[in-house]
Amino acid sequence: MRNGENAIVGHTRWAIAEGYIPSESTGKKPEFTSHETACMLNTSHRDAHVRITIFYSDRDPVGPYLLTVPARRTLHLRFNKLSNPEPIPRDTDYASLIESDVPIVVQHTRLDSRQPANALLSTVAFGAD
Amino acid sequence: MRNGENAIVGHTRWAIAEGYIPSESTGKKPEFTSHETACMLNTSHRDAHVRITIFYSDRDPVGPYLLTVPARRTLHLRFNKLSNPEPIPRDTDYASLIESDVPIVVQHTRLDSRQPANALLSTVAFGAD
Amino acid sequence: MRNGENAIVGHTRWAIAEGYIPSESTGKKPEFTSHETACMLNTSHRDAHVRITIFYSDRDPVGPYLLTVPARRTLHLRFNKLSNPEPIPRDTDYASLIESDVPIVVQHTRLDSRQPANALLSTVAFGAD
Amino acid sequence: MRNGENAIVGHTRWAIAEGYIPSESTGKKPEFTSHETACMLNTSHRDAHVRITIFYSDRDPVGPYLLTVPARRTLHLRFNKLSNPEPIPRDTDYASLIESDVPIVVQHTRLDSRQPANALLSTVAFGAD
Repeated sequence: MRNGENAIVGHTRWAIAEGYIPSESTGKKPEFTSHETACMLNTSHRDAHVRITIFYSDRDPVGPYLLTVPARRTLHLRFNKLSNPEPIPRDTDYASLIESDVPIVVQHTRLDSRQPANALLSTVAFGAD
Repeated sequence: MRNGENAIVGHTRWAIAEGYIPSESTGKKPEFTSHETACMLNTSHRDAHVRITIFYSDRDPVGPYLLTVPARRTLHLRFNKLSNPEPIPRDTDYASLIESDVPIVVQHTRLDSRQPANALLSTVAFGAD
Repeated sequence: MRNGENAIVGHTRWAIAEGYIPSESTGKKPEFTSHETACMLNTSHRDAHVRITIFYSDRDPVGPYLLTVPARRTLHLRFNKLSNPEPIPRDTDYASLIESDVPIVVQHTRLDSRQPANALLSTVAFGAD
Repeated sequence: MRNGENAIVGHTRWAIAEGYIPSESTGKKPEFTSHETACMLNTSHRDAHVRITIFYSDRDPVGPYLLTVPARRTLHLRFNKLSNPEPIPRDTDYASLIESDVPIVVQHTRLDSRQPANALLSTVAFGAD
């Protein structure tokens, strides 16, 4: 058995083909604000430098959005919060490509609270190297 | 690290074994119309020519449905909108095979608004080459 | 590009580690009866002979449950309906192993209508050969 | 066709990048208590000795949490119940690494009942060896 202290798991490229941030929400903020998240796990002892490219249906891709997932940490990134080079518009279809210099694991989640009981979806993203 | 400008990720064949479009909906149209979506991401610099075959439980497959995912674009296709060669009947079990001439990534999502708060599901489709 | 007419995709063994059929439901039957489904897609031209084994937390596995997914058909099997050799008890943790003599694709879905708006989950099952 | 009696499927390492246990719940306990579950299936004839490491966004990983999935059994572990070396705090982002000495299959599920109709998500975890 390997040991959580040394394990490195994941891929250096991940794609999330689904993307849609509803503009409306019901319930307390920020927990119930409709949002999409890329949950990233870096099990290695090196910081992961991550660049995200956002794809749209009707215009050129935007990016890179740059961020760091520190060594042996998880980062649950709300796409709602991305701002540089530009925010992701609401109520708009998009997709994302996530590239890292060390292997990470990426899982995609949406909380949709437009109607008065929230709905959830999640899937491990598509990993490649 | 590779670079979003040049990355090609995905498979040329994808299967979605689940398929069911509820005939009933609650809430504003078209956002809350019950629907199923195949979210397709083409990170390459070539247009992806896609053919979809729909499988049923009790009759021969129908297709191909033909469409294009332009280079470096995402297309979130509502199965509800397919019409040629024929629409997909509502309240009916189906499955789909998605084939492309360049690698793409496919994620499957359903919004079910039959009851007064919508439910969501999503999963990366099953990829093969 | 391959062609929907000849494609064979999938694995001959699939596992679904999650399993739980709620005993309660809200809404019209049978659509809104709480249920779990194994959606199976057989894209090949040969019938798939499938055997399902059900695993529990506190007793020996039960099975096989035998069924056929005809050539070029999908079968969305409600676990609720399995009866031979025995029904799956409600409100009980279980898991399943699905084996086929030709490659198929398996996706797992639950509709939970215990509370007055249904919830959904889905994931492609874990495939192996 | 292989046979459920002898099949071994899975991986010895699994990662779940998403993790969040809501502190609030609506409905009967314990069924509707908001929770996260790692559903583990051991199809082999050997007990699986499992060690779980929990990763956070702002502090060092915690673990190992040790448990056994008996031979030919499934264990649906609620993360809510982990206590040794310490409980997982509520309303906190985390991720998990699951290592086993025999191959197992892991699926991740959350039931969120903070609002008056529960929401569900599930995905097969990310498997590696």
